[in-house]
Amino acid sequence: MKVTFSLMQKASKQIDKFALYVPKSGVFPKGFKVATQATGVKKNGNLDLGIIRNVNTSRPSSAAAVFTTNKFKAAPVLVSKEVLEVTGGENVDAIVVNSGCANAVTGEVGLKDAREIAGVANQNLGKQNATLVMSTGVIGQRLSMDKIVPALSQQFETNAFKDDFESWLNLARAISTTDTFPKLISSNFKLANGTEYTLTGIAKGAGMICPNMATLLGFIVTDLPITPSALQKMLRSATDRSFNCISVDGDMSTNDTISMLANGAVDTAVIDENSQDFVQVQTQVTEFAQRLAQLVVRDGEGSTKFVTVNVKNALNFKDAKIIAESISNSMLVKTALYGQDANWGRILCAIGYAKLDNLQSLDDKKINVSFVATDNSEPKELKLIVDGVPQLDIDEARASELLAQQDLEVLVDLGTGSEECQFWTCDLTHEYVTINGDYRS
Amino acid sequence: MKVTFSLMQKASKQIDKFALYVPKSGVFPKGFKVATQATGVKKNGNLDLGIIRNVNTSRPSSAAAVFTTNKFKAAPVLVSKEVLEVTGGENVDAIVVNSGCANAVTGEVGLKDAREIAGVANQNLGKQNATLVMSTGVIGQRLSMDKIVPALSQQFETNAFKDDFESWLNLARAISTTDTFPKLISSNFKLANGTEYTLTGIAKGAGMICPNMATLLGFIVTDLPITPSALQKMLRSATDRSFNCISVDGDMSTNDTISMLANGAVDTAVIDENSQDFVQVQTQVTEFAQRLAQLVVRDGEGSTKFVTVNVKNALNFKDAKIIAESISNSMLVKTALYGQDANWGRILCAIGYAKLDNLQSLDDKKINVSFVATDNSEPKELKLIVDGVPQLDIDEARASELLAQQDLEVLVDLGTGSEECQFWTCDLTHEYVTINGDYRS
Repeated sequence: MKVTFSLMQKASKQIDKFALYVPKSGVFPKGFKVATQATGVKKNGNLDLGIIRNVNTSRPSSAAAVFTTNKFKAAPVLVSKEVLEVTGGENVDAIVVNSGCANAVTGEVGLKDAREIAGVANQNLGKQNATLVMSTGVIGQRLSMDKIVPALSQQFETNAFKDDFESWLNLARAISTTDTFPKLISSNFKLANGTEYTLTGIAKGAGMICPNMATLLGFIVTDLPITPSALQKMLRSATDRSFNCISVDGDMSTNDTISMLANGAVDTAVIDENSQDFVQVQTQVTEFAQRLAQLVVRDGEGSTKFVTVNVKNALNFKDAKIIAESISNSMLVKTALYGQDANWGRILCAIGYAKLDNLQSLDDKKINVSFVATDNSEPKELKLIVDGVPQLDIDEARASELLAQQDLEVLVDLGTGSEECQFWTCDLTHEYVTINGDYRS
Repeated sequence: MKVTFSLMQKASKQIDKFALYVPKSGVFPKGFKVATQATGVKKNGNLDLGIIRNVNTSRPSSAAAVFTTNKFKAAPVLVSKEVLEVTGGENVDAIVVNSGCANAVTGEVGLKDAREIAGVANQNLGKQNATLVMSTGVIGQRLSMDKIVPALSQQFETNAFKDDFESWLNLARAISTTDTFPKLISSNFKLANGTEYTLTGIAKGAGMICPNMATLLGFIVTDLPITPSALQKMLRSATDRSFNCISVDGDMSTNDTISMLANGAVDTAVIDENSQDFVQVQTQVTEFAQRLAQLVVRDGEGSTKFVTVNVKNALNFKDAKIIAESISNSMLVKTALYGQDANWGRILCAIGYAKLDNLQSLDDKKINVSFVATDNSEPKELKLIVDGVPQLDIDEARASELLAQQDLEVLVDLGTGSEECQFWTCDLTHEYVTINGDYRS
């Protein structure tokens, strides 16, 4: 086997992702508190249980979620779906997440366990159907109820819930499995009324240790007042443009869930789908979800590159996304990026085999493909294909400069319309194969 | 970067694929001759031009082809499609293949070049529209017409065409690019009339060096008499069950083509779609195409495993194939197989996110997943999932034995119908990343 020295050298320059992507402070939405505990499910003694709790009582909270479309949905996914269906997303006041065991492919007994956990939280909240549950970790094994249930009860009984920065960061830690850094972000935004609202998001990413799934979990909470149906519509749209626009290895787990709680602790008028502010809120939440989703790609297993694939001037969003996804999932494109090769042929090929909804989306005489500098260096754009014609005399020195950067952008201009889609992906590396192929030895 | 010693050791046991998969002799269909030449397009001086010629004159030949569905079809693909449309597949007497340059993404001038090559062959054959052309190699560059055209003319002028074993093997060499061994097979079959017919196939596989595409070419010739429409129907069906059932990295090139010539040099009744023998011939050709396609997987870049994914008892063929393909293309499954890990979770996950045509195809209480021994060792089947329940106490020693073998079989029994699909894939290895990521340094 040949693993060349140059690649090993490149890869050995490890990036300190914790320093780069984990905040040192944060502001959090009013009326939410969190608690975490190490129950012993994770054998290394790390935090493995997290609870988000709405403590605002001024009005009913709203909840929404987007679940995996995998046909083998884990028990907590089924139970949480049920809760949202029964309640219409109203008055859901807690999310309980455990890591280390996914409670997936566990049949009836798994459903019973997931319901019991929700039940314990509900009992402590003094409510029915007020809790979403989520699990991530090893699949095919039962939850250690003897560890999780007492720990969960204890959090409520000792009123362990807090809202400081360290507690939120611990929550991000508690939902992690093979993540190399906890994923926590916060942001403020103002509406036309002049009032400020806060968004906080935590996520865990696509890591796996046998037989873990690459479960993707994301939770966003806000103190904005919004109806459940508007929240669901907004989260669906935001997820389609964020968590559904990232690729680490193209696999989708039994447990993937993005959920959102809005408690309306900021006392302004309740927003619905017809409110003047709805579009602005949707834009804010989408951008926020994109930032959170990007952290998952940054933590892609063994990755050395963070790549934005920007498909613009498409006939429709769907085809822009199909093309962006095809490029982002191509093993050949991903290895070329790892090898820092300006391989327009592989990009064009991946565009060509994308299964488009409308064949008019692609015109081989109108397509432009470039690399775009992600720093401020010039020339900003390095054109690889212009109006369908490959540029065979590209500036190799500039190509090397761009491709040596950690952040890359591939720009595809289809020239057939005005819609666009951004997708985020990472490179395919020796380290990815090592992590996923060799964890047994 | 960590590349563990155990994996490097495993991979270093190189397999002598030439010795295993290249025949030392062969019988070939009557009435075909071949010629090859090193024109200088390949800079290493290897053979890079091949011609298959029908020399039987007892009746008109039949031709058929299945082309890439990539939207950026290379010039030779467009020209060959045109020839088949104009002629209805009748009286096509030559296939000209060049390697080293794919004549893809070359616009109008590429079309002109491809037509000129076909024209030179036609002129020498004294016919119109009698030649299919095909190219494989670097994309975005013009064919070196000054090298190819004189070489092509010379083959005809010197009557360099032969039908011995070495000439056929050279033809397989001439169409190769990064293939590590030439792919040539032959086979005989008898119909109810007692007459014997011969099939010969050559192929090239999924290798790429910047900016090559992983072009897949396959050519099958036979001395069976069959109508063009029956041949096309048969090849379409055979390709769907062979070349469209293999995965190396899931990419599809601008040049992929499987074509077939039948010259009827064996003087029996012409077969059409309604002939008694049609089904038998179709079965023979399908099995033959599968053998040829499997050689492409055997030569998958950096692969150490040849894996048959067998999905059976499906509601319909389409969903059996969608599931088999989803497993075969999963980077996580492919790395697990490389790591020799009995990771049922990744297999189940890939089944779960397959985009089925009919949701009834999958019933999570009926699914069975096993590894099957490809040698004669017992127990033949190692059950990983039984009626939807993961077997957590599998025989690890037996699992290690099975997974250490070079040939593996993953058996998925859906239990929802009676259709089946076999797919062939290889593992994803460090060497794959090295080959595709590091060819520049």
